[in-house]
Formats: sequence, structure tokens, C-alpha cells
Amino acid sequence: MSKAIGVFDSGVGGLTVAKEIIRQLPNENIIYFGDTARVPYGIRSQETVIRYSVDDALFLLKHDVKLICVACNTASSVALPVIKNHFKVPVIGVISPGAKEGVYASRNKRIGVIGTRGTVKSRSYEKEIWRLDPKIRVFTQACPLFVPFAEEGCLSGPEIKTIAARYLKSLKQAKIDTLILGCTHYPLLKPVIKEIMGRDVVLIDSAKQVALEVKNILTNEGLLNGKHKAVYKFFVSDNPDWFSGLARRFLGRAVKGVKVNV
Amino acid sequence: MSKAIGVFDSGVGGLTVAKEIIRQLPNENIIYFGDTARVPYGIRSQETVIRYSVDDALFLLKHDVKLICVACNTASSVALPVIKNHFKVPVIGVISPGAKEGVYASRNKRIGVIGTRGTVKSRSYEKEIWRLDPKIRVFTQACPLFVPFAEEGCLSGPEIKTIAARYLKSLKQAKIDTLILGCTHYPLLKPVIKEIMGRDVVLIDSAKQVALEVKNILTNEGLLNGKHKAVYKFFVSDNPDWFSGLARRFLGRAVKGVKVNV
Repeated sequence: MSKAIGVFDSGVGGLTVAKEIIRQLPNENIIYFGDTARVPYGIRSQETVIRYSVDDALFLLKHDVKLICVACNTASSVALPVIKNHFKVPVIGVISPGAKEGVYASRNKRIGVIGTRGTVKSRSYEKEIWRLDPKIRVFTQACPLFVPFAEEGCLSGPEIKTIAARYLKSLKQAKIDTLILGCTHYPLLKPVIKEIMGRDVVLIDSAKQVALEVKNILTNEGLLNGKHKAVYKFFVSDNPDWFSGLARRFLGRAVKGVKVNV
Repeated sequence: MSKAIGVFDSGVGGLTVAKEIIRQLPNENIIYFGDTARVPYGIRSQETVIRYSVDDALFLLKHDVKLICVACNTASSVALPVIKNHFKVPVIGVISPGAKEGVYASRNKRIGVIGTRGTVKSRSYEKEIWRLDPKIRVFTQACPLFVPFAEEGCLSGPEIKTIAARYLKSLKQAKIDTLILGCTHYPLLKPVIKEIMGRDVVLIDSAKQVALEVKNILTNEGLLNGKHKAVYKFFVSDNPDWFSGLARRFLGRAVKGVKVNV
């Protein structure tokens, strides 16, 4: 089926998920929407994130997508049930896949989760992890400065290292063996996080598992695209040039012809 | 005249201006609106900032304000002419007062301006400064991480110091003797900025001059409030608790009963 997969995020972060979908499903067309006029979602109330996420999903549905991927941890944490209830197409978030991978990876049953304030406050990862294994201990930490640092491209150097060390201190003390990167911006900060947490802590970036689940749903429902030559379309609600500039860093390839939808 | 002065900002930053209006005009009622559902404005396009600022002004006018103070450098930089054109009430921004104070303070005619990307890109300070004295040399620098640091309350310590030193390096090299803090969040970072720039550089925070101009307009137009016991009302578009929590730091007093307007 040649209809596109719809992917949305508050901004550029979701491109780390789109990148993995492209890698695992090279035949699939993708329509990406970044709500750059209202980014970031991580500092907003649950009601506002739900309202914005419904708008984003409606925009993708106008483009007749066959599946919606909520490629934003904050939106997945608080708005996924509403979006699943409202719309007919399959909807997939990033929390459940990340939690699943974390539970699978942990040996000592002590898992850390880092994310925005909105994601941490929602306790969405705890709920998903405990659904899979109620004996696991979960330690969460909001890292509000990670998103501005990632968007500014300050991915290394003493400033981000000091800030990361401060945020991650309690998780190191908790002796976790697995750390879920619960924000689609954080994969860009993997090197500094890895350096602080040490080799023995596995970093979970949910993108791979999300793409795998997208693949499973499309396979099971007979919705895979048989044709080759996939088309990728990118829409934003503001600042297409800023988006294009950052996109290469997040998507691993240049993005052209970004359109503004107001 | 007992109608209130309307003050708006993208979030909490404008409270540093409201604080000064309260100090200089203790009899005046104030209605403050912080657009916390769409903060920050500094990263958005000019078209979007204009659209949001018109919404904000309309909200204040619904409350029948007698004057609108655009207490946000980004909004003042790009949206002031539109707001002045659209509405009948006197409208005052923060750029012209800050530029005036900077020109007055500078002895060597080398002025630095720091602000958001949106403010710096608009070149609004250069235009205002050159209108007053075309011989002044103006050096600008965007400091995009200052707003998240101020909002996170990271006002001192090695991280903000390293970042500030990096941002301010070129301005130090330019041998400015006056630095305009072109963002209403920056007064909170005065100690660290002062430490880096040194004693001989005057830091200009436009709030005082803005309040003085508000006073002049109200006096000239016969709009001053004769009654005592001023009332302050605070509205936001999201997250009243987050706003209240930060408000004390920006306004210098506790804020109660913040209402949400969606």
C-alpha cells in the first residue's frame, strides 16, 4: 500500500525515529510533521500537549497516512491514549517500545529513565516497565537543559559534560545497568552520556524498536508498500530553514523542500 | 484613570519589566499575560512572532487596558510596528528605551547588544541606536542558551560561566563600554555577565527606562490612576504553577491566583 507512514514530533527530535524507519523499511513513503511553531512540548501541561498532539495527528491524516508514529516522548507519554481513541489508523508511540527494550536489556533489574519534565512527571515509563515486570526498580531524572543543548549543537565540551554529570549523578548512585534515553533528542548526546555512565550501562534509544514495531504492524495488516523509490515529505509549522539546518544532524541526511503548514 | 496597564511577554521574562512599573507607578493596576503555551518566541520566525503578539495584545484589550507594554525583546523587535498600527491604545516596546539608555551611557561609542536569535537577526537595536547617533559602533551576539538557563534557575556555577564567557568573548574583544541586555530574562544573569565583562562595562537593563516612558505617556495623556491600592492580575496560556514558581524570582514577590486563558 503506497500511502505514507505519518511521523510527528514537536520539532526535529522525531527525525531520529524517522531515520530508523527509513533504514528498516526502505520502501515506505514517509510524511513528517514537526510542530516548530510550538516546540518544545516537554515544558507544557498535559492538556496542552494533548491539544497540540491531536492537531498534529489531524494534519497527518489530511495527508491520508496509513499509520501514525508519535515520535516524541512527551506526546507519547500523555497524548497516546487520546490519539488512539480518536482515530482509526494504527497509532504507535515511543514509550512502550523503549520500555520493552529496557526490560529486555537489564540484568540487575535496575533501570534508569531520562526525559523532559513532562515525560518524567507522567510516569509513563514506570507504568510500561512494571506492566512487563513489576519487580524492576525504575529511577527517573528530568534533564531539561539537554534539549536546548542538542538543538544548539553543543554536543561535547566542558559545559554539557558538567551538566550531564549533575543530571546523571543520582542514576549512577542507583547502580542502574540500563538507561532509557526517553527523549528523541538525547541520542545526539549519547557520547557524553556514555562517558559519564560508563561502559557497563546499556543506553536504550527506542528508535530501532519503534521501527521494528511499525514494520510488524504494517506486515500483519497487509499494509507494506511493494513499490520501490520511497518519497519523504517534511512539513513544519514554522522556521523551515532552521529545521533543514538541524535535520542533517538528526536524520543523517540532507532534507530539502521543507514546507510550512500554518 | 483606573483602567489597567497591559503587559505581555512570551512567558515570565516580562515580569522584570512589570516589577519596575510597579516600583515607579505604585498606584497603577496591571494585567500581565504570559504566553506560556507557545514560549519561547526567540526561536520563531518573524511572521509567527507577529501572529502570536497580535493575539497577546487582543487578549489584553479584551480586559480593557489603557496602554500595552510589549515586555519582550523579540516581540518588540519584530511585532511593534504592526501592533502600533492595529490598535488605538498607546503601545510601548522595550527596544527604543534600552537603546536610548545605552546611547546615553556609552562614552567610547562602542555598544554591545545581547539577545535571542530573533532579536539579533531583526537588527532592531542597531536601527534604534543609529537613529539616535549614527556614529556609534554596535556589536551584537545571540545567546540562545541564556533563556533556558535563566528559566532553570541555573544563574551561577561553572556551566553558565563557561557558556557566558564563550558568548561574550567577541564583545570583550570589541572593547565595548556598554552592554544592552536585550532580553527580559537576562537581568537574572547580571552577576555572571558582570563578572565576565568587568567593572568598566555598564550593563543596561531597559526595564527602568521602559517604566519611565510608561509614566511619561500616562502623564501626558492624563491617564494616571489617582486611586491607591493597585490590583495586579496574572494570566498565562499554560502552566500556571510553573509560572507562579518562577514569578517570585523575576518579579521579586510572590504571585497568587494565576489564571489560564486558552
